Amino acid sequence: MPNHAAVMPEIGRIEIQDVGEPTPGPREAVVQIEAAGVCGSDTAYFTVGYIGNYVVDGPIILGHEVAGQVVAIGSEVTQVELGDRVAIEPGKPCRDCRDCMAGRYHLCTKLEFLATPPYDGALVQRIAIDERQLFPVPDSMSYEEAALCEPLSVGIWACHRASLEPGDHVLVTGAGPVGILAAQVARAFGAASVTVADVSDFRLDMARGLGFETENVGSGTATRNDFDVLLECSGAPIALADGLWRLRTNGRAAMVGMPKKPVELPLSQLNVNELTISLVNRYAHTWPTAIELVSSGRVDVASIVTHRFPLSATEEALTLAKHVPDSMKAVIRPQE
Amino acid sequence: MPNHAAVMPEIGRIEIQDVGEPTPGPREAVVQIEAAGVCGSDTAYFTVGYIGNYVVDGPIILGHEVAGQVVAIGSEVTQVELGDRVAIEPGKPCRDCRDCMAGRYHLCTKLEFLATPPYDGALVQRIAIDERQLFPVPDSMSYEEAALCEPLSVGIWACHRASLEPGDHVLVTGAGPVGILAAQVARAFGAASVTVADVSDFRLDMARGLGFETENVGSGTATRNDFDVLLECSGAPIALADGLWRLRTNGRAAMVGMPKKPVELPLSQLNVNELTISLVNRYAHTWPTAIELVSSGRVDVASIVTHRFPLSATEEALTLAKHVPDSMKAVIRPQE
Amino acid sequence: MPNHAAVMPEIGRIEIQDVGEPTPGPREAVVQIEAAGVCGSDTAYFTVGYIGNYVVDGPIILGHEVAGQVVAIGSEVTQVELGDRVAIEPGKPCRDCRDCMAGRYHLCTKLEFLATPPYDGALVQRIAIDERQLFPVPDSMSYEEAALCEPLSVGIWACHRASLEPGDHVLVTGAGPVGILAAQVARAFGAASVTVADVSDFRLDMARGLGFETENVGSGTATRNDFDVLLECSGAPIALADGLWRLRTNGRAAMVGMPKKPVELPLSQLNVNELTISLVNRYAHTWPTAIELVSSGRVDVASIVTHRFPLSATEEALTLAKHVPDSMKAVIRPQE
Amino acid sequence: MPNHAAVMPEIGRIEIQDVGEPTPGPREAVVQIEAAGVCGSDTAYFTVGYIGNYVVDGPIILGHEVAGQVVAIGSEVTQVELGDRVAIEPGKPCRDCRDCMAGRYHLCTKLEFLATPPYDGALVQRIAIDERQLFPVPDSMSYEEAALCEPLSVGIWACHRASLEPGDHVLVTGAGPVGILAAQVARAFGAASVTVADVSDFRLDMARGLGFETENVGSGTATRNDFDVLLECSGAPIALADGLWRLRTNGRAAMVGMPKKPVELPLSQLNVNELTISLVNRYAHTWPTAIELVSSGRVDVASIVTHRFPLSATEEALTLAKHVPDSMKAVIRPQE
Repeated sequence: MPNHAAVMPEIGRIEIQDVGEPTPGPREAVVQIEAAGVCGSDTAYFTVGYIGNYVVDGPIILGHEVAGQVVAIGSEVTQVELGDRVAIEPGKPCRDCRDCMAGRYHLCTKLEFLATPPYDGALVQRIAIDERQLFPVPDSMSYEEAALCEPLSVGIWACHRASLEPGDHVLVTGAGPVGILAAQVARAFGAASVTVADVSDFRLDMARGLGFETENVGSGTATRNDFDVLLECSGAPIALADGLWRLRTNGRAAMVGMPKKPVELPLSQLNVNELTISLVNRYAHTWPTAIELVSSGRVDVASIVTHRFPLSATEEALTLAKHVPDSMKAVIRPQE
Repeated sequence: MPNHAAVMPEIGRIEIQDVGEPTPGPREAVVQIEAAGVCGSDTAYFTVGYIGNYVVDGPIILGHEVAGQVVAIGSEVTQVELGDRVAIEPGKPCRDCRDCMAGRYHLCTKLEFLATPPYDGALVQRIAIDERQLFPVPDSMSYEEAALCEPLSVGIWACHRASLEPGDHVLVTGAGPVGILAAQVARAFGAASVTVADVSDFRLDMARGLGFETENVGSGTATRNDFDVLLECSGAPIALADGLWRLRTNGRAAMVGMPKKPVELPLSQLNVNELTISLVNRYAHTWPTAIELVSSGRVDVASIVTHRFPLSATEEALTLAKHVPDSMKAVIRPQE
Repeated sequence: MPNHAAVMPEIGRIEIQDVGEPTPGPREAVVQIEAAGVCGSDTAYFTVGYIGNYVVDGPIILGHEVAGQVVAIGSEVTQVELGDRVAIEPGKPCRDCRDCMAGRYHLCTKLEFLATPPYDGALVQRIAIDERQLFPVPDSMSYEEAALCEPLSVGIWACHRASLEPGDHVLVTGAGPVGILAAQVARAFGAASVTVADVSDFRLDMARGLGFETENVGSGTATRNDFDVLLECSGAPIALADGLWRLRTNGRAAMVGMPKKPVELPLSQLNVNELTISLVNRYAHTWPTAIELVSSGRVDVASIVTHRFPLSATEEALTLAKHVPDSMKAVIRPQE
Repeated sequence: MPNHAAVMPEIGRIEIQDVGEPTPGPREAVVQIEAAGVCGSDTAYFTVGYIGNYVVDGPIILGHEVAGQVVAIGSEVTQVELGDRVAIEPGKPCRDCRDCMAGRYHLCTKLEFLATPPYDGALVQRIAIDERQLFPVPDSMSYEEAALCEPLSVGIWACHRASLEPGDHVLVTGAGPVGILAAQVARAFGAASVTVADVSDFRLDMARGLGFETENVGSGTATRNDFDVLLECSGAPIALADGLWRLRTNGRAAMVGMPKKPVELPLSQLNVNELTISLVNRYAHTWPTAIELVSSGRVDVASIVTHRFPLSATEEALTLAKHVPDSMKAVIRPQE
């Protein structure tokens, strides 16, 4: 039985190759991947070949928002069983360094992260993964939902980094998948109100459909300026500076979006409200919470999936955002 | 027009008296009380005349879970308007002492609290209240719901005191009004799971109807012992000690119920998991959040109201729990 | 008896005027000012007439780092007595607004702050001050030390805003009075190590004399890049960006200095270590701690005073930094 | 060369035996033990054979407050070198479980802790220890001081668990080694004041000599009742209950002492001040801070050592407290 993967042999091209059957290490399980969300970072590696200091320099397999079924287990595996349906956390920390031991394994300098060069991702039919990165999900949760626990984790961690407190009024800038999920997390964590801002009416419609107040930034009518928390998910350089002005005293901002240029901030004016700006680098300890939020219905991840592709259409999936502005999240089904 | 109040001239007796029209001070508003929840503390003052060091020593009006409509305002009032429908926070702090300035106005030693001797409560048709204790509610919220923002505030504060974090697994002991509301708050603040324990099947049925896992403590089958948070809302001396054993490492307990005797705790054994026990004294800063939780539908306060009474039946309302075990919350309608 | 003040009738000029005897309000005391530190903000108002949005537009008395002796008290004063030697907190909050009640009185929009337009400061022989801004100091503490509890408070609050934890390694950029005091506070709060950076050898010598590691930024040899906390006290735009790069994972920066231009930050690179940047606006609740730190000898504020002036030499004091680069802190003695 | 250890073949008896030369594992180093403090737990195992659920059931070597010199290293050791003088953290966590990854390795259920049954301790001349438990100390620090980083860690963690904030007023009950060190840590972390209470004048004299306010509990004159933090280090059942009454609002207590019986607490009265009680189980991440505190002179651990013994006098050392009430800390020198 071949094990097909969507390999990127060079920037901008995908080839379906048989990468051979994975052999699980003692604490690994082989997962048959059933759903893989496409992330903006996948698209960036595909189109320009790098993100910050991470540079593709050889064939690579993309994909890190993944879920599937356990089809083989290593000799020492105890935490999952054959047949388990699992959401996959893409990072494998060293479990030994200062950061790992301090509860910050996501900042481990030896972190091996799916689809971050030089590590391959999971756009493949079967892959061996350390059991400690596998989180069984209930039967009521679809593989798509399980895969989207990854971007949901970004939203969870953004709220954590922003020290979101129940009762806070929250502004989310950027209504892409991460923004939409972060907004839902904020509400599920007790935010008094959540307002979502973007320039795309398509995206704002989706936000409104999920029950949020919205603002079209392009139309220029800010509704209020007394937010407690800003979750910046757009990556637009101006969004952070503008958003900070809309926070009231003790306001907290988490910077999730990745602006391509340095951001200019008038700190000597912004200091009046004693704001706190927290930078964000992925997430830690989020999968159990993500699974509970989805399985209890408090967060709806399914409805952000606007397009689905078989593995053979990976190129199309990776460039969806460019060709179909009114899209939100593409999911690849490697078994199709 | 008379202003009828349910006065308790002596322990165990209520008289409806005309207490005269209130005159609002410069920063006060007169509120026409439309709904008043009966609290266990009202019942305690009615039946035994004291709670801890607070002793009734003269006629008193009970009632502190109240809401109504603004019918007159003082000369300097700016925060509410005539006709506003308002939830009432019952405590009036000095705004001057160390605790008030530290954000802990609820611990102000000069706090004047409705229906806590020597201060009268609000089982009255019209009452003058400082505008800073009045919180307008949307038209979609009933007066009953607005009144129950008070016990809901106890639940909010219990979660705060327990340092509840999103993703925590929560055990609520005691499925009375406070327990049921605290459980809902825990869920609305992102708890991964909430289990409610009690000895009353009637109460556990209500908890189950609201979507919670339940345990009948009498039947002795604890379902799990890996909770992160305990919200002790029963006041049963054994509940805290038992509940602490069911917390896992870093477990946190908030002590809301008021046991009548000292509690014996085997701290030298419990220390293994480095538990934290937080005592609770009312709440602070909770009304805006309470109103958002109710108006957004995230918390259902209405369904805990099992019995309603006119002002003239105040005695019956105060003794409901004794005569009707299968009751949850009584509400008095002073205008009826 | 005249009550001489150093009035600034127009930018760049000081006149000694008799401003008349102050009459204390019911909760005020008249304090005979014995020492007044000169702050960079005093100098800025004197030389350019504004700081950010605060603009001098009329005669003003400067000076807000002050201490003295109580020589008269109002009818309701209970917290100080005639003869008390007191440190003065310069801000008077409304004690009524959301921020005051949340424990953030320093962010009160109605805050009346000495020597911040339009409010007069305390370069005067006698001034009436609300008793709640007066903190008795022990006899062992000099008036100069008591006055310097104000810049010390800036250092205390900077550590608070940076979430300094015992065991942190701290970098202080800027070895002016605030930087030197912040460094001492960091050490007194349990920092594992404190390194002070500046371009002035004079200032670095003082830092070294107080026991700190130092770096001359001009010489370009950074000693280490694994700090946990950055206290930016220089106001140099580059200092924050450079300092952030020297923080390790979970690093926290407090921004005390006020750069005159917007600061450009490469947030998409800095996010790797999940830094947190906290803006700072004065302080709250710091005087009791400041007094304890000084009186116990844990912080040495006296040795930063390099120059002393009588009230008549206020102009000279205000321009000291310009004319004498090897100066640190000027203190004016209004009774001389 | 023999490797002598103080073996306890049965309760109440110590035998010096040659236990053979240790062979370091790949990530272990052999440490020549130069100083070993005697802890109350050592004495308890020696005299009664158990502490809580930890029961001695076979020969055991006691001792876990230890320091020495690296005399051999395993093949993969990178963090220490031959000749390094090191303080030893006695616990070895699994680095794999939920608690280890959450930053709470001290609560790891697989923790192997020196001198806690069934694990041997370090009253031995040479012992192999995982390099990650070894912390090089500067030459200026004696081996005794390095060994006492262990009880000092208890004090550090107690302050952490009590959420000690700079400016807090602290009451330490119990002036034994842990209490004396906890008091010093509280001061080094910015406590405004520290008061030490005990019944022994000998111990209180030592506390006074280190600069603390003291109270003889036996004489019954409490000096004040407005503490913010209680560090209960006596284990006397009454000390916690009494101490809690002396805390003001928002007071926090850390329970370090291990009372032999359950503790009775009047929680329904104590709740007025919204106290928080934190149980304590050893420490985590404390060695670097402990070493800095000692080497910078902010904490004096040396002066609590009142008695020193060669290895051959281990029995005498273990029973010192019983025979010499006016003793504080015994240190065994295994090389003598």
